[in-house]
Amino acid sequence: MTTQYDDEPAAPVGDGGLVRLRLDLAYDGTDFSGWAAQPGRRTVEGTLTDALAVVLRLREGLKLTVAGRTDAGVHAAGQVAHVDVPEPIDCEQLTRRLAGVLPDDVVVRGVRIAPAGFDARFAGIGRHYLYRVTDQLPDPLRRRDTLAWPRPLDAGAMQTAADGLVGEHDFAAYCRQRPGATTVRTLRALQVERTGPLVSVMPWADAFCHNQVRAMVGALLAVGEGRRPPEWPREVLLAGVRDSAVTVAPPHGLTLVRVDYPPDEQLADRARKARARRDEPGERTSP
Amino acid sequence: MTTQYDDEPAAPVGDGGLVRLRLDLAYDGTDFSGWAAQPGRRTVEGTLTDALAVVLRLREGLKLTVAGRTDAGVHAAGQVAHVDVPEPIDCEQLTRRLAGVLPDDVVVRGVRIAPAGFDARFAGIGRHYLYRVTDQLPDPLRRRDTLAWPRPLDAGAMQTAADGLVGEHDFAAYCRQRPGATTVRTLRALQVERTGPLVSVMPWADAFCHNQVRAMVGALLAVGEGRRPPEWPREVLLAGVRDSAVTVAPPHGLTLVRVDYPPDEQLADRARKARARRDEPGERTSP
Repeated sequence: MTTQYDDEPAAPVGDGGLVRLRLDLAYDGTDFSGWAAQPGRRTVEGTLTDALAVVLRLREGLKLTVAGRTDAGVHAAGQVAHVDVPEPIDCEQLTRRLAGVLPDDVVVRGVRIAPAGFDARFAGIGRHYLYRVTDQLPDPLRRRDTLAWPRPLDAGAMQTAADGLVGEHDFAAYCRQRPGATTVRTLRALQVERTGPLVSVMPWADAFCHNQVRAMVGALLAVGEGRRPPEWPREVLLAGVRDSAVTVAPPHGLTLVRVDYPPDEQLADRARKARARRDEPGERTSP
Repeated sequence: MTTQYDDEPAAPVGDGGLVRLRLDLAYDGTDFSGWAAQPGRRTVEGTLTDALAVVLRLREGLKLTVAGRTDAGVHAAGQVAHVDVPEPIDCEQLTRRLAGVLPDDVVVRGVRIAPAGFDARFAGIGRHYLYRVTDQLPDPLRRRDTLAWPRPLDAGAMQTAADGLVGEHDFAAYCRQRPGATTVRTLRALQVERTGPLVSVMPWADAFCHNQVRAMVGALLAVGEGRRPPEWPREVLLAGVRDSAVTVAPPHGLTLVRVDYPPDEQLADRARKARARRDEPGERTSP
């Protein structure tokens, strides 16, 4: 195992006058080029880093670490990030001031001092996503976070297919490969629910590799519209290689809903293990 | 009573080869200057009329009549309109073609031949609105249809205040006056519900006069944040004149949810009575 990762804190908590903050945030991903900062692009990370810099009057040194590095167009209702900042910090005041500086498509719901050992990315033990798709004429007010599907979907068949993906597997068939990164993940649940015109797909895993959620949803949609049998997504999984018949579902139907962390006393241990297991710093935990 | 109204059909149903269509539609009002067509402005009526003209290959003569003439920024989930068009009409094909022509902030959910005597405006016996307001940090994905209120709201106090407005009253205190138009309306229900961070105000009446819903919501918000006692909105009502202390709530929290019509055999009778009772063609049924 290597020992240095680009998302390790610049300095340990409490050392050198730095304190780690946990930020809980939500955003409408429509007008962002995803989470990760990119030169010349409007990103959530870039926007939030700039806002923190303004509010904290820091020129540099702010490095955000996030639980789920969402792609362009993907939303978040319960995203979590951490950042190390110089003490002292008044968290309530910081939350208020951020609200005054941030654009209205990003909301920081809360800022608090992170417990010892907290790491937004590596201490996370569960990521919950929601993919919204409608097979009827879409609600214009939800068109930003709901995919409109032109053919009827059989949610029951989608659920049968989803059941075949649950468990610990090598999800290489559903992941964009990154050299040296493992694609083994534990998919804890993959529920499909119809509520009137809306079909909700709800993946829950320890973490997801890049593209995984949207590729799984794409496979389920093929089943839902009857183009493939319910066994097909599992067959693709077991084949273990990317299948060109799996279409990655569009990003705008997807929202990161929640990230789970263990109790405070287990945080450091969990982060250490996750770092060791997922071998590669570039690995992504988002769709 | 006068006998000619601008929203009467150009020709009676079935006469001269015209047929009346009922359109059920939804829109995100954010980028519209309201329902009513205005020169040089993007309006729902103008957009829908243009789309119908393209699909039906008609140059002119299309005149839409709507159940609730929503203001700029107000949304609709269950708006109803009618239009008289030359026969024959294939309603399913028309619905599909409209979907291909309309921008994605307007959706025509269904087109059907209207029953005899149907008038989207005057045959309506109930209008249901929803006003969404949150007193916590807003959900960025719902910021288009939810008002963010900067102070805590007491939904119980708001409900007490709302109860004082229900019934048949002269709502002049909550209406923008139009010369010659009555402001007597029957408010059948005005429910206030809290669901987590969201407070929903749900007005239901035979019809609303202009500004009425948003003015009532404005009064309830003053009660909710403790600036006025729960008796105040009723006192304003009984005073019978516009009260400058009532702030009209912003439009974007408001959605027209549903319009009720009587059974088919009562339609003509209902439309005749409504025309007679609401004396003035310019009267509006929306906020």
